[in-house]
Amino acid sequence: MEPIKSRVLVVGCTGYIGRLMAQASLDLNHPTYLLVRPDVVHDIRRVEIVLGFKAQGAKLLEGSLDDNESLLAALKQVDVVVSAMAENRLLSQLKLVEAIKQAGNIKRFLPSEFGMDPDRMHHALKPGNHVFESKREVRRAVEAAGIPHTFVSANCFAGYFLSSLAQFAQFMPPKEKVFIYGDGTAKVVWVVEADVGRYALSTVDDPRAVNKTIYIRPPANVLSQKEVVEMWEEMSGVTLVKCHIPEEDFLRDLQGPPSPKNEALSIFYHVFYKGECSNFDISDDVSASHLYPHIDYMSASSYLKRFL
Amino acid sequence: MEPIKSRVLVVGCTGYIGRLMAQASLDLNHPTYLLVRPDVVHDIRRVEIVLGFKAQGAKLLEGSLDDNESLLAALKQVDVVVSAMAENRLLSQLKLVEAIKQAGNIKRFLPSEFGMDPDRMHHALKPGNHVFESKREVRRAVEAAGIPHTFVSANCFAGYFLSSLAQFAQFMPPKEKVFIYGDGTAKVVWVVEADVGRYALSTVDDPRAVNKTIYIRPPANVLSQKEVVEMWEEMSGVTLVKCHIPEEDFLRDLQGPPSPKNEALSIFYHVFYKGECSNFDISDDVSASHLYPHIDYMSASSYLKRFL
Repeated sequence: MEPIKSRVLVVGCTGYIGRLMAQASLDLNHPTYLLVRPDVVHDIRRVEIVLGFKAQGAKLLEGSLDDNESLLAALKQVDVVVSAMAENRLLSQLKLVEAIKQAGNIKRFLPSEFGMDPDRMHHALKPGNHVFESKREVRRAVEAAGIPHTFVSANCFAGYFLSSLAQFAQFMPPKEKVFIYGDGTAKVVWVVEADVGRYALSTVDDPRAVNKTIYIRPPANVLSQKEVVEMWEEMSGVTLVKCHIPEEDFLRDLQGPPSPKNEALSIFYHVFYKGECSNFDISDDVSASHLYPHIDYMSASSYLKRFL
Repeated sequence: MEPIKSRVLVVGCTGYIGRLMAQASLDLNHPTYLLVRPDVVHDIRRVEIVLGFKAQGAKLLEGSLDDNESLLAALKQVDVVVSAMAENRLLSQLKLVEAIKQAGNIKRFLPSEFGMDPDRMHHALKPGNHVFESKREVRRAVEAAGIPHTFVSANCFAGYFLSSLAQFAQFMPPKEKVFIYGDGTAKVVWVVEADVGRYALSTVDDPRAVNKTIYIRPPANVLSQKEVVEMWEEMSGVTLVKCHIPEEDFLRDLQGPPSPKNEALSIFYHVFYKGECSNFDISDDVSASHLYPHIDYMSASSYLKRFL
């Protein structure tokens, strides 16, 4: 007999990652609740997204992070909260933390993370460092409130990073030339978004993941940019012109572009020159691949084949 | 044995209606080609849409309406062109018409229409009238070029009109009060978008639809706003406060809001006060419901049930 699945509330379910959290919750047969802002009524794209989840059995709860009463009412109906707030709204989660503390019934909270581990990024360059700062601030608030939690480090989303072989602000493989960061040998962790959802939701009823940071680091997807470029060249039969960007040139230029491009670029530095997704060891008890070996994650190779 | 299906090129496949045209083409087993602009690479949402179609067998052809060479190369690979350009880009289709004329091999062209019949809307109010004017300009260019064509009049998209019981710029049913246009008795034709795609694509290999305007007017979906409101009240058990907007008030106020709201409002006038979706007779030979009785269209009632 399958154990009873916790009731999951997804906050931010119409966003890029929130959609995958909601889908994973439904796919894993959790009773799934979606916090839906009243103003969604004016956004036909978001209405279609929430109706799609509703058709799969999700329950829509009207509310917003700015309305404590609505939050409390929603929280009382669930056991677990998964937040996927966008990067520019991370600190609004402090209201959610406060409400979870007030409600007192939430057995697990996953704040919006799903990137590099912010507690390892105290040294991050400006201006992108504020994302890590905000995530740390939320973490500390969660801990101070005594809320059982799981932090999920998901590294580099395939759609944003792998799709273009890490070309900035592009989401399909380049056709003629490819920019390589330094010598391209820093090891990066590429994770397909749907797998982020599956791993993250697998933690919510897992006592092994309470009050821990779980790292999604699928072994086959720890690859340097150079290896990813070679993989694509081999499968596509196209040889790309390689333009290496020396570290000093990258650092000199990264402050130039306007926000948020400069913020994203400064994070690229840590990923692609410093290899900071993977330059530390993790133990089995916090490795998503080790904890959930039944999840057949998508390999970088399979992901890139979609573009052929 | 099923007759050979024409190869269909969809132009504008990542847009609101274009997505449904591409899906309908695939669902109807047409070899489906999608014109994909080179700059789609910068839009992760659109990349995901085209990859979704590619996974279903669509072939992506890089090109744009501003690049005649790419258009000709794409047109040479197909038999039928379905355009779903957005309202603010309707006249860019004149380049497509020119390319189709040059290519010389296209057996059917469906320009972007899918609303009220523009040839019946010469009297339309400013400022929304420019949509009808642009559609007429494209129609005349198609006819002058001698391109076999089908114009599809699809009336009011459910997502934009029916979802909110015709509340302007809302896409879910209201919860307390509903604005009613006049006495709410003008008959309106509500059509679910996926059905627009299915009917439109059903015409492309149909000799009965050559050089005609085909009207999508599903008999069960010819309903007044009042009937739609009553239908929702009955299924939801909620009684809404009715705020009737007299015609003269609506006309006085419609020029006030900025574009494009004022443009949409002026079209609301024709739909909801004048009933101009349905206040003319159509013969069986141009009725989509009559030509394609096998299509089990979604009723307004079923559509609204999604919100319960």
